[in-house]
Amino acid sequence: MEGISLLILATLIATSHASHVEIPRPIHLLRPQTGAGGHHIQGISCFSWRLGVETNNIRDWKTVPLSCEDYVGHYMLGDLYRKDCKLVADAAALYAQNLKLAGDGKDIWVFDIDETTLSNLPYYAKHGFGAEPYNSTQFNEWVYTGKAPPLPENLKLYKKLLSLGFKIVFLTGRAENQRKITVTNLKEAGYHTWEKLLLRGSSDENTTGVVYKSGQRKKLEKKGYRILGNMGDQWSDILGTHTGNRTFKVPDPMYYIS
Amino acid sequence: MEGISLLILATLIATSHASHVEIPRPIHLLRPQTGAGGHHIQGISCFSWRLGVETNNIRDWKTVPLSCEDYVGHYMLGDLYRKDCKLVADAAALYAQNLKLAGDGKDIWVFDIDETTLSNLPYYAKHGFGAEPYNSTQFNEWVYTGKAPPLPENLKLYKKLLSLGFKIVFLTGRAENQRKITVTNLKEAGYHTWEKLLLRGSSDENTTGVVYKSGQRKKLEKKGYRILGNMGDQWSDILGTHTGNRTFKVPDPMYYIS
Repeated sequence: MEGISLLILATLIATSHASHVEIPRPIHLLRPQTGAGGHHIQGISCFSWRLGVETNNIRDWKTVPLSCEDYVGHYMLGDLYRKDCKLVADAAALYAQNLKLAGDGKDIWVFDIDETTLSNLPYYAKHGFGAEPYNSTQFNEWVYTGKAPPLPENLKLYKKLLSLGFKIVFLTGRAENQRKITVTNLKEAGYHTWEKLLLRGSSDENTTGVVYKSGQRKKLEKKGYRILGNMGDQWSDILGTHTGNRTFKVPDPMYYIS
Repeated sequence: MEGISLLILATLIATSHASHVEIPRPIHLLRPQTGAGGHHIQGISCFSWRLGVETNNIRDWKTVPLSCEDYVGHYMLGDLYRKDCKLVADAAALYAQNLKLAGDGKDIWVFDIDETTLSNLPYYAKHGFGAEPYNSTQFNEWVYTGKAPPLPENLKLYKKLLSLGFKIVFLTGRAENQRKITVTNLKEAGYHTWEKLLLRGSSDENTTGVVYKSGQRKKLEKKGYRILGNMGDQWSDILGTHTGNRTFKVPDPMYYIS
């Protein structure tokens, strides 16, 4: 880890010296001006860019700026991403344990899946950490391996929520035809039980994430469920309607889903 | 600036080595374990804490954790805060300039005041950057000096919005009895015109920021205004109802208003 930490520090130092924050156009295909020596780049502060993404100030972005590919990579592989995730999980656990549940099986916690309960970092590490355009064929091949590991802090949170008496609902943008592999992967990753696993059906194919997920949450509430917590890595997981009593945003600087 | 940059870097390096992210209890009054040598602190990662605050994962906090006082101070006085602010202002400008205004004088941009258009950093720099408990008497004394400088990037955005044809509405938690000094301060800081300056009246005294501001925005919409942009440093500025077509969160790790 020490080597990675040093890389992170080098990147921190480099990016903190960038003198402008405009997002530059990609320079050329070989990306010679990126990397830990990125302090030569005139343009974006990758620190500020990540904050802008996490606060929903930057929206509808297609890929990580090329000049931030290495920064995002170091962040995702390093200590800070884990710490950032732990802080969110700890805040969620603190909130959850102070709630008084009704105990009628209707108190639910909604989890997104990708980059919230399961991590696709093994895939994105091979695909520019979000700096490469999204390739659904390749990504779905990865999904069908069923090998996505859990986000450790959120797996711990999941277990804690179960012990507190919450019912778990997974609400994912994955397609209904990926149900079987998703079940397999969730169980293998340590998520062994849930109340519902809601995947995107054919009728939801052409809606945005925020519309699809709001609709699903509305149906849950109509069935008498109380959404006490709602956690996702995308703002589209936690904005919209029927967002629940409290929302939690998990870090994800690799991609944007509207 | 080089000295400040080095301090920031020292802080970055220090905090990136912290090994846990739990928020510790304040240790004791002399705060011996804080400072740029904060890498000795077992406890919070101030990086992660700030992200948690900016993403609304950490809520209802009273003061900056003592172990993060120096980190927040360096951040606020340093280059990164300015870059973070610039990125938000740039994103807002890009959004605004791509809108087609109706041109009937009803297209408005709502700005919060404190830490959004005017900066109280000169005050907070003398009061622990938010690590000291809020003291309304002292803070109001500062307000009555009328000396709060503008946030430079948001003053630039304000001017751009005016040139694009937006009407400006200032919506602040400041009390109605501070109208005169607020007008003086805004004008001195370079904000020379606006459609409305809405301050908190006596009937709004006991409501939260989010309820008060939602109510004010509702009234604006009832009068036919279209809230195309809404910018504030607190989540309570931009959550709630009638939030506008798009919201922008300005960084503020110094205090929390519900």
